[in-house]
Amino acid sequence: MATPVFAPAPLEPGTLRVIPLGGLGEIGRNMTIFEIDGKILIVDAGVLFPEEHQPGVDLILPDFAPIRSRLDDIVGVVLTHGHEDHIGAVPYLLKLKQDIPLIGSTLTLALVEAKLKEHRITPYTLTVREGQHENLGPFELEFVAVNHSIPDALAVAIRTTAGTVLHTGDFKMDQLPLDDRITDLRAFARLGEQGVDLFLPDSTNADVPGFTPLERDIGPVLESVIAKAPRRVIVASFSSHVHRVQQVLDAAVANGRRVALMGRSMVRNMTIAEQLGFLRVPEGVLIDAKKAADLPDDRIVYMSTGSQGEPMAVLARMANLEHQIEIGEGDTIILASSLIPGNENAVYRVINGLTKLGARVVHKANAKVHVSGHAAAGELLYCYNILKPRNVLPVHGEYRHLTANAALAIETGVPAENTFVGEDGMVLDLRDGVARVAGQLDLGHVYVDGSSVGEITDADLKDRRILAEEGFISIFIAVDMQTGRPIVGPEIQSRGFAEDESVFDAVKPQIIKALGEAAANGTRDQHAYSQVVRRTVGRWVNTQHRRRPMIVPVVIEA
Amino acid sequence: MATPVFAPAPLEPGTLRVIPLGGLGEIGRNMTIFEIDGKILIVDAGVLFPEEHQPGVDLILPDFAPIRSRLDDIVGVVLTHGHEDHIGAVPYLLKLKQDIPLIGSTLTLALVEAKLKEHRITPYTLTVREGQHENLGPFELEFVAVNHSIPDALAVAIRTTAGTVLHTGDFKMDQLPLDDRITDLRAFARLGEQGVDLFLPDSTNADVPGFTPLERDIGPVLESVIAKAPRRVIVASFSSHVHRVQQVLDAAVANGRRVALMGRSMVRNMTIAEQLGFLRVPEGVLIDAKKAADLPDDRIVYMSTGSQGEPMAVLARMANLEHQIEIGEGDTIILASSLIPGNENAVYRVINGLTKLGARVVHKANAKVHVSGHAAAGELLYCYNILKPRNVLPVHGEYRHLTANAALAIETGVPAENTFVGEDGMVLDLRDGVARVAGQLDLGHVYVDGSSVGEITDADLKDRRILAEEGFISIFIAVDMQTGRPIVGPEIQSRGFAEDESVFDAVKPQIIKALGEAAANGTRDQHAYSQVVRRTVGRWVNTQHRRRPMIVPVVIEA
Repeated sequence: MATPVFAPAPLEPGTLRVIPLGGLGEIGRNMTIFEIDGKILIVDAGVLFPEEHQPGVDLILPDFAPIRSRLDDIVGVVLTHGHEDHIGAVPYLLKLKQDIPLIGSTLTLALVEAKLKEHRITPYTLTVREGQHENLGPFELEFVAVNHSIPDALAVAIRTTAGTVLHTGDFKMDQLPLDDRITDLRAFARLGEQGVDLFLPDSTNADVPGFTPLERDIGPVLESVIAKAPRRVIVASFSSHVHRVQQVLDAAVANGRRVALMGRSMVRNMTIAEQLGFLRVPEGVLIDAKKAADLPDDRIVYMSTGSQGEPMAVLARMANLEHQIEIGEGDTIILASSLIPGNENAVYRVINGLTKLGARVVHKANAKVHVSGHAAAGELLYCYNILKPRNVLPVHGEYRHLTANAALAIETGVPAENTFVGEDGMVLDLRDGVARVAGQLDLGHVYVDGSSVGEITDADLKDRRILAEEGFISIFIAVDMQTGRPIVGPEIQSRGFAEDESVFDAVKPQIIKALGEAAANGTRDQHAYSQVVRRTVGRWVNTQHRRRPMIVPVVIEA
Repeated sequence: MATPVFAPAPLEPGTLRVIPLGGLGEIGRNMTIFEIDGKILIVDAGVLFPEEHQPGVDLILPDFAPIRSRLDDIVGVVLTHGHEDHIGAVPYLLKLKQDIPLIGSTLTLALVEAKLKEHRITPYTLTVREGQHENLGPFELEFVAVNHSIPDALAVAIRTTAGTVLHTGDFKMDQLPLDDRITDLRAFARLGEQGVDLFLPDSTNADVPGFTPLERDIGPVLESVIAKAPRRVIVASFSSHVHRVQQVLDAAVANGRRVALMGRSMVRNMTIAEQLGFLRVPEGVLIDAKKAADLPDDRIVYMSTGSQGEPMAVLARMANLEHQIEIGEGDTIILASSLIPGNENAVYRVINGLTKLGARVVHKANAKVHVSGHAAAGELLYCYNILKPRNVLPVHGEYRHLTANAALAIETGVPAENTFVGEDGMVLDLRDGVARVAGQLDLGHVYVDGSSVGEITDADLKDRRILAEEGFISIFIAVDMQTGRPIVGPEIQSRGFAEDESVFDAVKPQIIKALGEAAANGTRDQHAYSQVVRRTVGRWVNTQHRRRPMIVPVVIEA
């Protein structure tokens, strides 16, 4: 299963080439390209949210390098569902070429169109639904209903002359879903009987034993928590989780409460979901957030964002008393969401803040108020046994998830050599039912920071980490190049290092002395003097303070 | 339960004053001071490990401000057990006054003495054991055995003329512990019958329902994982977890394997534990790490540190192939530890790295290889019912843990107004069985960074966070104060902002123009010119790049 970095041979006619640009080795920025006979099909184009070692980054995109010079060959982008990690990079892709067609279900396209509107892009779209077939160049597509934590999700079967591929998108197999739209195992069975040459399954929960519990077990819990709440109830969830919002609406009605939606994305998404019939809003239950304040405290439920502790979202602002709704004794907060790894500190800071204000905080750890949207190991075994795929490329997961998914494939009889655990940029060629690793592209992370895309590099992030750990010291000197004598300076500034800048008085004479010695030894150029300053200050700060701040010398000719 | 910041009245004779300096609102830097009739007793002096929003900080100490001018009044420091969050600040306390007596059990004092040796301090110590009574000035101490994830832990009862206090230290109530040393509920019962006026219980797991599972359930799991391991086994755990190491030694022997201890603190602590009889090392099981490499792969277990993903510890270095032991296909890694919140990303990075190298990684989420060392809610209820304390001050927890513990007290009949959920610096006075909040001190965080203690401030950390998010731009100019004309510069440097520094060419003319205009409007001083530069660059970077880096102007007189 090793994947060395090597260049693939040119693609021969009749061979299908599969390259995941994102989603392998990370939960996010899902994007896979399929190429045959000169044409390219893309499945998903999502974003990844940064971790703490990527400070100040807003978003991370897949590296579009392999398709940048091939934009005219792209026949379309299939979007499996409307989550950010599957559609978030679409605006950046369409900025390269606006008329690439987007193919997806009604809800998925509505959500991506709302997003594109903010970027002032009107896309070309093709709405599809489960059971539908579409031909795009050499690709014959069939869409299959799957159940996930957002409605109207689709898997896609891709038939080519080289073989048949099934990409699940994100899915689970809730057998009693709220909208009765189950993952279509009959279609999976039929595809399996016809023969699936390559299967790309969601790996997110592949290392979770057993089965994801039923969505409908959540409703009664929400209802009973709301029933017991003496004052206001605030429920926080993902802004696209239509079914969770549905359950909150229903639980509110059962308790004679009204619901106010809070947060821009929550209002936008639920408006779309209602218009398209995915959210059933009981008559008169919704109330404008501003008017809700006039209701008695035990008659209102606020439905908000911020379940991951995001500092600017409604919930964190409430915890910091920076929101017009002032949380107090008797209020109940429900975090109806999973705790995404890496967000623990932020979430617990919010929970502590709300608790301190007197609120009761109900979350996944102390009540069954959320279930995952991804298939656990038990469900994946069903898929493998129904499909009996010839080859498996687990997608959508960190390395540990991909490995766990491959192990499940092997347990159901897929030969180990036909399971491919790889990284973004892996090149997999398929022909006559045989898949093989044909190359490995060296793909990067593309960082979005402010209005810049790809300007911030890994080197900048390394600098930022050093700055965060140690701060910096900058030393400015205008030097006589012949004598090394400072004409102006040394002028020393620091941040994140020490409050009292008089500490630098000790090193200034050392700098002047070192410059003089360097000149005596023949130094005459700016760069060499800079190095002298860097070394002198570096040695001093390390010996005297046992610290390693970034040292930024600026030596100019006087 | 509100605790406004207010100054306590001077302490009257015969009243006991309790002030937690650390451990309230955080898991770490536990330290509480008790004062009566002019004398001070300290219980524990621990450190807190920094979170991601405190970058570059090595350790966080309790604020010693309230005792700094009272060092001669301190009768001693009781150390309840040998974990860093209870003993780690002792060296910094003894640097203020070396002859403050330390009181603790054999193992606790051995561990603190080893630590003090590194700081070249030889302490005054008094070794005590369970059941023992000692008088220190106005404090009559009685030590009670408690069970925890390190041997030889003690609770301490403190009798004064103002009433009796019981401080649990850290504990749980494993009823079948490996060393048969259970938390002494007979002693708790006796103390309860005599009357406990103030109870300070460990809150770490107060929000975990039920009971902490038995330590001895771990052994068979470890044994079976090791039995099935085809090649090398690496177990990572806390370096002071004597019982876990004991279980690994026993499991290794049962499987005909030898054990190599890795990591300086692991070797040091286990050497002490063996010498004092707390660790039973079976004849011939230990082997030097260097010699272990000569054994067949299926005959060795490495016992290492790094279970929290610490980047410099053995395990993370193995995952990065920066360790002499090269992990490969067939190796088994066991993380026999809890995953401390906030460490998830680091730990999963290590797990992904090890998995990628071909190893199987067994951890708490997929096998029962660890149990907590702290009493869960069910155990705390036993304590409350046996003790029936008059007043309760939950310690050792974030706000949500303290609140959960107080709720348990109230459920067992402690009046709500007698439970005190507070923050570090809360002043609680006790007299005639009545406790009341008498003040709130404003205590800070004392940061240790390199060799500096308390030099780094919250302002520096704020600077570091901005630097991490956005990087910085520094602008140097030597200006003619009369005309605003730059004589040298503008010379612009940046880090963490953009790779290509030619972006700044655009703003340089704007700076020169703005300085000229300022001079025309009468500006003549350095500070005002600096502000002009800051505003000009700030506006440019915000408009052109939608970013907010730290802007550091250095304007000097030419």
